[in-house]
Amino acid sequence: KINGERLWESLMDMAKIGPGIAGGNNRQTLTDEDGEGRALFQKWSLDAGCTMGLDQMGNMFAQRDGTDPDALPVYVGSHLDTQPTGGKYDGVLGVLGGLELLRTMNDLGIKTKHPIVVTNWTNEEGTRYAPAMLSSGVFAGMHTQEWAYEREDAEGKTFGDELKRIGWRGDEDVGARKMHAFFELHIEQGPILETEGKTIGVVTHGQGLSWTEVTITGKDSHTGSTPMPMRRDAGLGLAHVLELVNQIAMSHAPHAVGAAGHIDVYPNSRNVIPGKVVFTVDFRSPDLAVIQDMEARLREGAQAICDEMGLGVSFEKTGGFDPVTFDETCVTAVRNAAERLGYSHRDLISGAGHDACWINRMAPTAMVMCPCVDGLSHNEAEEISQEWATAGTDVLLHAVLETAEI
Amino acid sequence: KINGERLWESLMDMAKIGPGIAGGNNRQTLTDEDGEGRALFQKWSLDAGCTMGLDQMGNMFAQRDGTDPDALPVYVGSHLDTQPTGGKYDGVLGVLGGLELLRTMNDLGIKTKHPIVVTNWTNEEGTRYAPAMLSSGVFAGMHTQEWAYEREDAEGKTFGDELKRIGWRGDEDVGARKMHAFFELHIEQGPILETEGKTIGVVTHGQGLSWTEVTITGKDSHTGSTPMPMRRDAGLGLAHVLELVNQIAMSHAPHAVGAAGHIDVYPNSRNVIPGKVVFTVDFRSPDLAVIQDMEARLREGAQAICDEMGLGVSFEKTGGFDPVTFDETCVTAVRNAAERLGYSHRDLISGAGHDACWINRMAPTAMVMCPCVDGLSHNEAEEISQEWATAGTDVLLHAVLETAEI
Ligand SMILES: NC(=O)NCCC(=O)O
Ligand SMILES: NC(=O)NCCC(=O)O
Repeated sequence: KINGERLWESLMDMAKIGPGIAGGNNRQTLTDEDGEGRALFQKWSLDAGCTMGLDQMGNMFAQRDGTDPDALPVYVGSHLDTQPTGGKYDGVLGVLGGLELLRTMNDLGIKTKHPIVVTNWTNEEGTRYAPAMLSSGVFAGMHTQEWAYEREDAEGKTFGDELKRIGWRGDEDVGARKMHAFFELHIEQGPILETEGKTIGVVTHGQGLSWTEVTITGKDSHTGSTPMPMRRDAGLGLAHVLELVNQIAMSHAPHAVGAAGHIDVYPNSRNVIPGKVVFTVDFRSPDLAVIQDMEARLREGAQAICDEMGLGVSFEKTGGFDPVTFDETCVTAVRNAAERLGYSHRDLISGAGHDACWINRMAPTAMVMCPCVDGLSHNEAEEISQEWATAGTDVLLHAVLETAEI
Repeated sequence: KINGERLWESLMDMAKIGPGIAGGNNRQTLTDEDGEGRALFQKWSLDAGCTMGLDQMGNMFAQRDGTDPDALPVYVGSHLDTQPTGGKYDGVLGVLGGLELLRTMNDLGIKTKHPIVVTNWTNEEGTRYAPAMLSSGVFAGMHTQEWAYEREDAEGKTFGDELKRIGWRGDEDVGARKMHAFFELHIEQGPILETEGKTIGVVTHGQGLSWTEVTITGKDSHTGSTPMPMRRDAGLGLAHVLELVNQIAMSHAPHAVGAAGHIDVYPNSRNVIPGKVVFTVDFRSPDLAVIQDMEARLREGAQAICDEMGLGVSFEKTGGFDPVTFDETCVTAVRNAAERLGYSHRDLISGAGHDACWINRMAPTAMVMCPCVDGLSHNEAEEISQEWATAGTDVLLHAVLETAEI
């Protein structure tokens, strides 16, 4: 069993870096705060006797060697970056839970045949730079590194420049590492485990995602002196399309969700009819056909709305991944660990995207989830109990030890 | 007749300060660019033999003395600040048209009994600091100076601090000046004059305005893992309320307009359901009862929408003025001037708010309008012809000379 107190203390220490405004965190990717968080993780890893690898996407790899020099490592980990108004556990639990594994194994003198590597994947959240899970995506060969480097934040700063600026661009080729398996511990970010009183989620699948950036073009003009029939109001076009997004998602409920979290209005002046609105529609479903249907209906419906209103509209797919089926052997290792340890558990489909969703394409992968209060995440009030964190990390330990062979 | 070439050259020179990104201007109030524009206007005024007054709101007063030391001045003017993506003429024509008056009178050796004062009113646009027409409003006793100083821009910088920072806070008590009359020349910002082929608008009324800042509060949560029924999506609430705003305005059309130009979404992250949206609804009508009806229906309707959706909502009136009837004598002076000069003209109700709307409360006031291409304003592509600018300034000259008594 892992040391729950120590794990919790590390979680609280990490949360001191990049504090939010309401008890959570704002430690967005490639900010100075992200750099500080990385330095702390590196220090802890070296203290635990690990070596630290760093690749050209800034992905971090803390390695504890195994007994067989030819055995591929078992990887565990998640991400340390947060949403702008994010919680203390989303991603962080998976990295520091991984570190706690190594500390526990050190305490107990456990040796494994396979090395164990704890990862911190760069830019999982996708807020500052779309898409989410960018660097695990490059690692898994889903995007090229050049394309990733060119991603721009809202101020036009590129991923490549910012990675260099914070000093965490390594030399290692991205994706060169081969994995025996990958396990990611994460909070559920949804209500199912807590509602059903289960402590462990055995993640069998991940739902797919589609991000479409929609740009509606109207004409800036005066809100007072422009007659209603002459207006080409991109803000009103936004309203109609947001309603459409909701209708489309509801038509597939409960097998789909949809919303727009990002909306920018130009020139955003009280007395100027919006001439342009840019927003990102987020559709998800465990069923690829449903995602494709939602995407198609969005494009067709928004086009019709904008045609009718004399507005221009364009679409760009800025992120997405297909629904995921995790590796049966790894999933079984997680379920068996929960069972053996006596934790109540159930199978889950992950509602959120995770680095594990990309890594699953190149190595046997599975995820462990623990509950979070009211299913709330991407909110500074995100909360979990120490017991849940401990349980999740215990299950992670046992699944990893089985896979890495003691 | 005024010198249309010289006027046009001055307009083009002023437009070099704070250029926009598409041929217009971004010279927002109390920015460094605003300071530069003020310095140029001051230089030109001193060159024309004027004295320059500056009050504690940064309102500028370029005075050409009259022959009777006891006669109250006739004021003319408008504003030099622009929208973030504004045109080269909105406001600027009224200030530089006033300056051209003085230059023409110098050329022709015209003396008037009453002094003539050309004003530049601070923060007419209301984009950086709501409400619009802030400083003419303080001058007319509609707001206190303390309250105006406390207005904050999007970055939390106050009006008072920024006015001091750019070095244009004067000593003069605001509103201490008494006026014989006030005339404001402005582009129409709407399509009526151009459509009807008239060169001059004789502004008899101004429509009233109401700005309501609406804050909808939902709950930040994950766009992927939060089930649809658990969502409290402030962005979807925004969509419903924007549709309501449009319905309300259309129900009174053509006697009312309504839209939202300013919309901020929080935390504005692609994978976070908006927890908060703040936006400003702009309703206008020449009929006060219609404005009041629209305001009431907005509050009631938005409350019902948000109650139904489990969202919080609050309202703050951040700007507004009642419909205006301009002074009959001044209006007649404008109409007679147009008639005398042989310019085609028609009476107009101003669709936009103007400093003249506030000054009308303390002194006999009227406005002259000239057409703008396609009725387009609050857009960098705002355009007028040199002929229109010249005609408007000619009419201004003659109305002012009649009122200031040669
Ligand atoms: N786990 C998580 O919040 N990932 C961010 C990517 C997503 O939006 O699902
Ligand atoms: N003339 C003008 O654009 N004034 C700004 C105030 C308003 O929104 O009407």
